Formats: sequence, structure tokens, C-alpha cells
Amino acid sequence: MESQEPNVTKSPLMPLMYSNRVPVKTILEGSDADTGFIGMTVVVGGWVRSSKEVRKEPVPPPSSSPQMAAGAAPLGTKDVSCVEILQSRIPFFRTIIRVLGGSASSPAVRQKLESLIAKPPPPSTFFLQINDGSSVSSLKVVIDSAIVPVFAGQILPTGTCVLAQGVLEKPSADEKQTIELKVEKILHVGTVEQDKYPLSRKRLPLDSLRDYPHIRPRTTTVASVTRIRSSLDFATHTFFQNHGFLHVQVPIITATDPEGFSEKFQVTTLLGEPSKKESSIGVSDADGVSLETIKAAIKEKSSLVEQLERTDSNREALAAALQDLRKTNELAKQVETREKSKPVTAVKPDHLVNFNADFFGQQSYLTVSGRLHLESYACALGHVYSFGPRFQAKKTESTKHVAEMWTVEAEMAFSQLEDAMKCAEDYFKFLCRWILDKCSDDMEFISKRINKTVTHRLEYMASSSYDKISYRESVEILRKATDKAFETQLQWGVPLTDEHLSYLVDDHYKRPVIIYDYPKAVKPFYVRLNDDGKTVAAFEMVIPQIGTVVTGSQNEERFDILNTRIKEFDLSKDQYEWYLDLRRHGTVEHSGFSLGFDLMVLLSTGLTDVRDVIPFTRSHGKANS
Amino acid sequence: MESQEPNVTKSPLMPLMYSNRVPVKTILEGSDADTGFIGMTVVVGGWVRSSKEVRKEPVPPPSSSPQMAAGAAPLGTKDVSCVEILQSRIPFFRTIIRVLGGSASSPAVRQKLESLIAKPPPPSTFFLQINDGSSVSSLKVVIDSAIVPVFAGQILPTGTCVLAQGVLEKPSADEKQTIELKVEKILHVGTVEQDKYPLSRKRLPLDSLRDYPHIRPRTTTVASVTRIRSSLDFATHTFFQNHGFLHVQVPIITATDPEGFSEKFQVTTLLGEPSKKESSIGVSDADGVSLETIKAAIKEKSSLVEQLERTDSNREALAAALQDLRKTNELAKQVETREKSKPVTAVKPDHLVNFNADFFGQQSYLTVSGRLHLESYACALGHVYSFGPRFQAKKTESTKHVAEMWTVEAEMAFSQLEDAMKCAEDYFKFLCRWILDKCSDDMEFISKRINKTVTHRLEYMASSSYDKISYRESVEILRKATDKAFETQLQWGVPLTDEHLSYLVDDHYKRPVIIYDYPKAVKPFYVRLNDDGKTVAAFEMVIPQIGTVVTGSQNEERFDILNTRIKEFDLSKDQYEWYLDLRRHGTVEHSGFSLGFDLMVLLSTGLTDVRDVIPFTRSHGKANS
Repeated sequence: MESQEPNVTKSPLMPLMYSNRVPVKTILEGSDADTGFIGMTVVVGGWVRSSKEVRKEPVPPPSSSPQMAAGAAPLGTKDVSCVEILQSRIPFFRTIIRVLGGSASSPAVRQKLESLIAKPPPPSTFFLQINDGSSVSSLKVVIDSAIVPVFAGQILPTGTCVLAQGVLEKPSADEKQTIELKVEKILHVGTVEQDKYPLSRKRLPLDSLRDYPHIRPRTTTVASVTRIRSSLDFATHTFFQNHGFLHVQVPIITATDPEGFSEKFQVTTLLGEPSKKESSIGVSDADGVSLETIKAAIKEKSSLVEQLERTDSNREALAAALQDLRKTNELAKQVETREKSKPVTAVKPDHLVNFNADFFGQQSYLTVSGRLHLESYACALGHVYSFGPRFQAKKTESTKHVAEMWTVEAEMAFSQLEDAMKCAEDYFKFLCRWILDKCSDDMEFISKRINKTVTHRLEYMASSSYDKISYRESVEILRKATDKAFETQLQWGVPLTDEHLSYLVDDHYKRPVIIYDYPKAVKPFYVRLNDDGKTVAAFEMVIPQIGTVVTGSQNEERFDILNTRIKEFDLSKDQYEWYLDLRRHGTVEHSGFSLGFDLMVLLSTGLTDVRDVIPFTRSHGKANS
Repeated sequence: MESQEPNVTKSPLMPLMYSNRVPVKTILEGSDADTGFIGMTVVVGGWVRSSKEVRKEPVPPPSSSPQMAAGAAPLGTKDVSCVEILQSRIPFFRTIIRVLGGSASSPAVRQKLESLIAKPPPPSTFFLQINDGSSVSSLKVVIDSAIVPVFAGQILPTGTCVLAQGVLEKPSADEKQTIELKVEKILHVGTVEQDKYPLSRKRLPLDSLRDYPHIRPRTTTVASVTRIRSSLDFATHTFFQNHGFLHVQVPIITATDPEGFSEKFQVTTLLGEPSKKESSIGVSDADGVSLETIKAAIKEKSSLVEQLERTDSNREALAAALQDLRKTNELAKQVETREKSKPVTAVKPDHLVNFNADFFGQQSYLTVSGRLHLESYACALGHVYSFGPRFQAKKTESTKHVAEMWTVEAEMAFSQLEDAMKCAEDYFKFLCRWILDKCSDDMEFISKRINKTVTHRLEYMASSSYDKISYRESVEILRKATDKAFETQLQWGVPLTDEHLSYLVDDHYKRPVIIYDYPKAVKPFYVRLNDDGKTVAAFEMVIPQIGTVVTGSQNEERFDILNTRIKEFDLSKDQYEWYLDLRRHGTVEHSGFSLGFDLMVLLSTGLTDVRDVIPFTRSHGKANS
């Protein structure tokens, strides 16, 4: 009792709130510090990452084991006949069916259970690596089937869900891990239909995993990405709230075009609510993938096969790639046939559509950027930020941009271009430092398995100073780059393309660079005109291997000039009347920026395609699940 | 020098990062504690909330004032002739024009300035209450026009933006405030076009402010709402991150219908990108308001006029309401005429539209709820949450629901109905406590000006325990309520309407109530079927005066039952194949909930209409600005 042992340290093995299980992370971290978890009884829940079975010889039963499941006689009783053993085990398996059968999804599993009543398996020890998403590492869970009524096909497959109670023990000396769970009681098993489970095949490449966005968080990589993403999310709010910014939720649906040159999604109720069954037509058509996308995939997959053949690498990988390509070709044929048999119809051009009858009484779009709306709050409350989804209906295939992406936007009144550049740099460095400090476990995994250099790069980016060069200077550097032939020939006034940016940060500077004072034609109408009348107060922060992660600007606070710029861009003034109001009444110098959050996750995880860091990617031809 | 005065306390008057101004809050809070800000030189920026001018007699000039603006001779020099004074003041006003003219938006202001060269005004002292959004209170800013070159029409109007440098002084003894800024130099003035500025008229009611979402954060009420909203936002992330939840951004665009019975917005590129000029057609039509909405507004405004006439209250308010009504009637006529002259066209019904040609190759919608997608992450990583915009295309006018609302969703694996109820209650109480702790300034304002009871209610809700009753019990209570005649007659199986919920929490319990175990027909297909086969494991948290703020449930983890439920609801199974996968492979008991974030802001601010707490409201007929 506590009063008799005042010096006993209180157990830190707290279960997770709103669940009775103890996170694997808590057990593993505590066990490293040797805080005496050994001998404690805990409940652990998670999914099997890997497993093995070791058959064992029958051993004499304990005379009255407290760990025995109700109704189950222990195996290995030498002084009873075989028939007696079998008979004694019938209630044992009936218990399995009662406890687990209800949640066992597959009829096959139930059949198997029934058959086991007739023919019980020999006793085994199951070793499961259980992961619950709390850490990179899994916990070793040991189940003695002679004590706990489970069988191999039910508990061993990767992806099986297990909730078990047991005692924490020290493993035998030759093990890497310092603690394991000896199971006394299984509280739940969620089985796997192995033939249908996408992760049954080990080490599926990331691009194949994209077809299973609902399952892929169960992989070590996507789990790490998710934890890092969540951490960057909280870091963002922490940074801005600590610096006196207010969070403002800008509208997603808008009639205002913030860019003047983006492709947008229209939001409508004019196309009608489909009947429930009809709504699935699209989905069932080759999983909602357009022919165009499938053809792009075929191209990609063919080149993978070629590459694998060339490098003479892994045979299994090649076989898998070939099979994948074959399947995709079949799919393309199916979709093509189906497309042809459909009546080709088109919606009337928009000038014939009466948008007064649409839900909002006018044409409405998904927002491309929240900065204009955010300005109105900055011009009242000072420092504000927003964090939300932004949309672009670009049909190009890209590893850096998809249709739906999360963006962090900041806007500050009484502030100029330099302030926005400073804030963006500080925020970016804060994120880099945060990841290194808070996600060391995941970064270690990433360094080992995905990208060796990423930790070093984050360290470097968190601590070094960034070069600031004008657009003019960057053009000069690029024109001097005689060792490099660019596809787009550069002269003052043209936009910098990916190849230019890559040369600047990857080859020339070899570190992040901030480029400012762009030609006015390549930036949106609202960016502040510089005194030279040719450039505007915009900037971009370009990161090695990634490209532009932050775009920012001081926006035009002078009514007359903004008004002229709207005309120059041939934009509808009516649409921007509210925006002009901010200059008409109490105008103020202000600046801000947008950070592509998904790109930030990409560079923090060392991956190369945003489709691997966004939970459910939306891109051309892809919105299923 | 510092080395000579080692005991001098360091100044805590830090300017805001990324701006050189000191927040008004910092000055006012510090001044309460008397930390010796008096005598310090600071830069302050903000917008004029109120102002007054006091004319003063000419006084002898200081022999060589350091505060004088360059080139400006001080007024009141008795020993020079009038002509000399005027001549000496010409460069003074030229300075005004040079410094301020560029940013002065109105030609009228510039004309005024020019005219002042000919006829300089008598010297005045201007007293401005400047607010920068950092606090409810404003800072008194004193400008002596004899020293600092400004004139009344330029600086006094409500809404004028001022950035000024000066010295903090103690006001004369009879003042309420403990500190004020004596201006030495004006760095920026953003003037106001008074005839067009919506806030020129004092105390505009909240419903009128809704027409100016871009300007209304400059009012004390909407500024307080914004600060409280931002604080609740950070409280949300803090609560979940502290409890081991990972933040997951669920998709906004989706082909999966999470409810089975919601009206949805379709996302499309089929209606075409309008030409830039054309895109404004909707906007310019009566600011994008539909005739239906205008008619609803007329009804509302008529009843306001009636009410004002009846109560014989404020004449000004009545006059304003009458004028408002007149304008709205005119608007209705204009729109009606225009609508009639338009060709009536309609888009083809959806079964004729080839959605294979749409951006995503299928029909896609704005998400109604993120819980289904969130489940897939819970079934891999344990505790997860999401915070984002959700959409419903409901055409009804409501004070509690609009088309675009932000929702917090949580999902937990290895957890049951009770866990979700407990988590929702804890989270809700955490938010109440957070507001009381972190927003005392704003809550004081709200208690004084908006709602006297709200602080007390938050205190009560943060500390009391909530009754938990089953749907069956709630029906029994309601059937016994003979003192109350409900519009919808109640019997087991029908949904509880607002009037029922209001009776339960406002009249019967007089505190928050959690209702659970609903009839299966009134809840979505995915909610877990209880053993009685008639009810499901859903719950709602109902708050007095607001209604349902949280809905939650334990979701069905059993494959066969979920499959049957999908059929019962006549939903397309194809659409839910990915969702069924979560039960097919490693299924687990899990539960979660959604909290209507806008409703949370509503109840924290004591307001009654969500349109007053959402930055840019999107509702039927309203998506302008």
C-alpha cells in the first residue's frame, strides 16, 4: 500500500485519454529510461506490421493457471487421451467464435474457426510487431496460443488489428528491443482479407500506395509523414499566435478572383442533385479515373519498366512493375470502350446559363488565394493569418501542385516588403527547427530509409542566413550561366521558370534564396508598384530541390494606382469594389505572404511528390475516396 | 548610459515584430501597472474610432522647437504680420501635400489641401481615439496642429488610418485613461471618404454590418468576435495536440457522400471559365443578391420598422430603418426588371451531362463532413482530428446554419460511444475555460454591451456536469411536458426538432444535456447499431439558447452490418468500397464527433446569428466580396 511505501515512484504508464490502451510510444520511451515498467499489466492496441509463428512441443499444464481463457483446457496434458483433449477444446473454440466471430468480417475466417473445432491446431507462440501510430517503432507482442485462444491465419497477417491485455516483460538477452508484451487476454481481433489487402505485399512503392489513400497511413512512411504534417500544423499556429497574429478563416467559396489569371473550379447547384444510385456512375467507371490520366500513368509505368530492365536491378520489382503495366493497359481499354458507348454531351456555354438561378445568385468559385480577404482583416486588426485549402483547376501533371492544397497566408498592416520577407524567413526557419526538435524519432526513420540528407538540410536552413537578390540580379546571374542551356531563354521581364530557379538555388547559391522586385507583368495586379514604374514589391522564397515555397508581396495601398492596375489587367472593377474600399477608407501600407504547406511537408520529409504527403490527393481525374 | 544606471528596468515597450509600431494593448496594459512608460517615444498605428477638435488661441512659438515639421513656421507669432504668417506657412502645406497627398485617395482631400495654402486654418488640438485591433480599448492620441501639419477633415473622420510617432504622457487628472500619446510626427494618414464610408453613421446594427464584411472588423464588436474566434481556434489545436491527437487535413472535394441525405454543392469546370469581364455579370446585378433574398430582407426590415414604431423608441433608428426599407424596395424593383429581361435558361439535367469530361472525371462535391475520411486515419494512427470548412447547399434562412461553416472533427480508434461523449464534453469545457482565461478583456466588453449573462454561462458550462439521457428518456420528458404545445407531435422514432431541444435544455434541465442512442432512421448509415436493433450509438450535445453544438457517434466496425445498412439507406455500395475496406482489413471499434465551430463562437460571444461571427458569410444568394 502507498502509505507503507512512500518512496515508490508513481507509475508513468498512463493510458491514452478516451481509450483504455497505453500508447506504444509511452511503453517504448519509458523502457529506454528503465523506469520499471517490467511486470506491469497494460492494454495495448494496434495493427500488425510483421509477425512470425514458432510451433512448440506440448508442455505440462499449470495446475490452475489464472491466465487461462474461460472454458479452455490447456494443451499438452499428457495424462488425458487425444479424444479428451479435443473434446475439452470444443468450448475453447466456441469462445473464440463468440468473442471474435462477431467482428471477424470474413466468412472464410468463420469457416476456419468452425473447422478448428473439429481439428485443433498444435500449440504455437506468435510474435507480433504491433504499431498504433504513436511512434515509428512497434511493440513486440507475444501470444502463447496454448494460453490465449487464437490461431495463425487470424492473427498473423499484416494489417490485423489487435487489442490485448498483458504483462510487460524483459525479452531474452539477444533481442534488440528492451521490452515486450506477454499477452494474457485478447480483447479484440480485426482480421484481414489477405488476398484483397493492398499492404499484404511488402514494400509497395509510394506511387502504388497512392491508389489506397485510406490504407496507406498504416505504412511506416505515411505514418511518419502524417505525424510531421500534424506537427508542422501546430508549429504554424504556435508561431503566429506567439507573434500577435489573429487567425481568420477566409471564405472558400468566392466571387472574387484573387489572381486574375488562374484556372478555377466553379461551385454550383445547377447541375442538379443526382439520385443516390446515379451519383456513383462516375465512381464505378474505372474508379473515377479519366482516360487521359490512365494514359499518363501508362507512360510513367512503361518508363519505370524500362529503367528497371536497364539497371538490371531487383527481379521481383521488375515483375511487379510489368504486372502493374499490364493491368493499367487493360484498364485503359475498358475505359475507352465505355467512353465511346456514352452519349457525348456538353453543358451550354456559360453566357447561356442563368447564374441568377444558381445557389449564390451569381458565378462562384473555389478560392485560389485568401490574401485579398485577409487584407480586409489586416486593415482593421493588424497582424492576421489564415490556414486553409486553396484550389486550382490546372490539368497539368506535376509533382509539386495538385488541385487542392493547404496554404498558410499572413498579412500585416503598417508593414512593408522587407517586413514580409523577414517574417516569412523567420516562420520558415521556425518550422525547420520545430521539426528537428519535436519529430526526432520520425526524422531518424526518414534519414535512414527515405533521404539521408534531409536532417542536415533542415539544420542548415534553420540556422543559415538567406541571400536576398532582386529579380534583376537573378537574371544577370542566369545570363552569365554559360555552362547551362535553359529551355526558356531569359531576358528581363519574363517569368523565372523551374529550371532557372533550380540553377539559382541548387547550382549557384546552394542554399535558400529570396528573390524580390519582379517585373509588374508577371505578378498579380494588387502588388505594390515600385517607384521605377516597372517592377512591383513581390518576393519569392526559393528552396533547394523544392522550388518556390513562399510567395509574398507588399500590396498596393494607393487607390489611384490600384484602380489603374485593375484596368491594365482588364479585370472587372465591380468585382473589386469591396477591395478598393480598403484604399478608399483608412488605407495603410501592408504586406504579407503565402506558404505552400504541402511543399513544406514535402521538404521536411525528403519526399519528392506532394501526392505522397497529402492525405487524400485531388488532381486531374482523381477525386475518388 | 546603461553601464552608469545598472538598476534601470529594461523597457518592456517592444514594438510588434515585422512592424515598427507598439501595439495599443501593450501601452494600455503596461500603463495600468505603472511601469514607467511615461516619457517614452513610440510609434503607434491604428484607425480612428472617435475624435474631437478643440480650437485654441495662438500662443507664442517656442524659440527653436525640435518637434516642428521641416519648413513650417509655428502659428501665433505676434510680431510678424498676417501676410508673413501666410507666406511662411506655404512650405508647411506643401509639405503636407508631399507627405500625405500621395496616399490621400480622395481628390476632394487634395483640393482641400490646395485651398488651405491660400487660407490656413486656425490652430487646433485634435483628440483621436486610435484602435489597432490589439485590444477593446483605444489609445488617446493628441495632435497639436500648430506643431504637426494636419487639418480636421483629413484626420478626424472615423476610420481614418494614422501612423504617428510621439511621447507617452500622463493625461490631465480628470481623464479616465492613464496614458496618452502626444504626437510629434505623423508618418502616415489614410483618409476616409465620409459620404461612402459605412461606419460613418454611428452604431450600425449588426445585421446592417453584414453588408460590409470587409469593413466590419473595424467595429468593436466584430473585432472582439475575431479575437475570441482566433483564441478558440488555438485552444482547439492545443486541446487535441495535448491529448495525443494528430491533425489530418481531410479532402474538401470528394465523391463520397458522408451523410446520404444532405444537399451538396457540385464542383465543376464544365460550366467554363468565364471571360474576365463577363465574370462580373452576377456581381453587378444588385451586388449578386437574388430576388428571393431581397424579398426576405424586405420582410425582415418591414417588421423592424413596425417594431420601432410600436415601441416608440429612438427616432433616428426609425428614420434609418425606414430609409433602409425604401432602398431595399427600390433594389427589388431593379432586380425584378433585370431578371425578366434575361433569357431563362437552364442547364441540362445531370443524366445528360458527361461527367467523364469533368475535371475529376466524375461528379464531385464539396464535403459535408470529414468524419468518414478521418476514420481511415484513426484506423491506422489512433487519435486524430480535423478542422476545416464543411458545406451544405441548404436554401433555408437560418440563424444557426449557412452554406460554409468550419467544423472540428475528432475520431479515435479503440474507443466507444462513452469515450466520444467524454472527449466532446472535456473539449467543450476546455474551450469555455480558455475563453474566460485568455479573453477577459473581450468578455468584459461583451458582458457590458452585448450579453450580460454570457460570462456567467461560460463559467457554469466550464465547471458543471452535463446530464446524459437517452433519446427514449428525452421523448418521455417531452411527452410529459403538458404545459408546452409542440408544433411537431412527438413519438418514438421521429427526430427531435429545435423546439424539443429548446424545451429540454432551456426549460427542463436548464443546462447542457447529452442525448444518446437515437433511432437508427434519424442518423447516418455509418453509426453503430445497438444490440436492440432499433437504436444506434449516436449522441448530441445540446447547449441552452444555442441548440446542438456537437454531434457524435460510435461508428459501425462490423463489415456485415455496415454493408446491410448501406443497402437499407439505398446508397451506392461502389461509392463506399474504400470505406468498407476499413472493416474488411483490421477493423476496430472507434468513435468520434463533430463540433460546429461557428456555433461555439456564437455561444462564446453571446450573439444570436452565425452570420455575425463568420468573417465572410456564404448563404443562399450571398457570396459577394
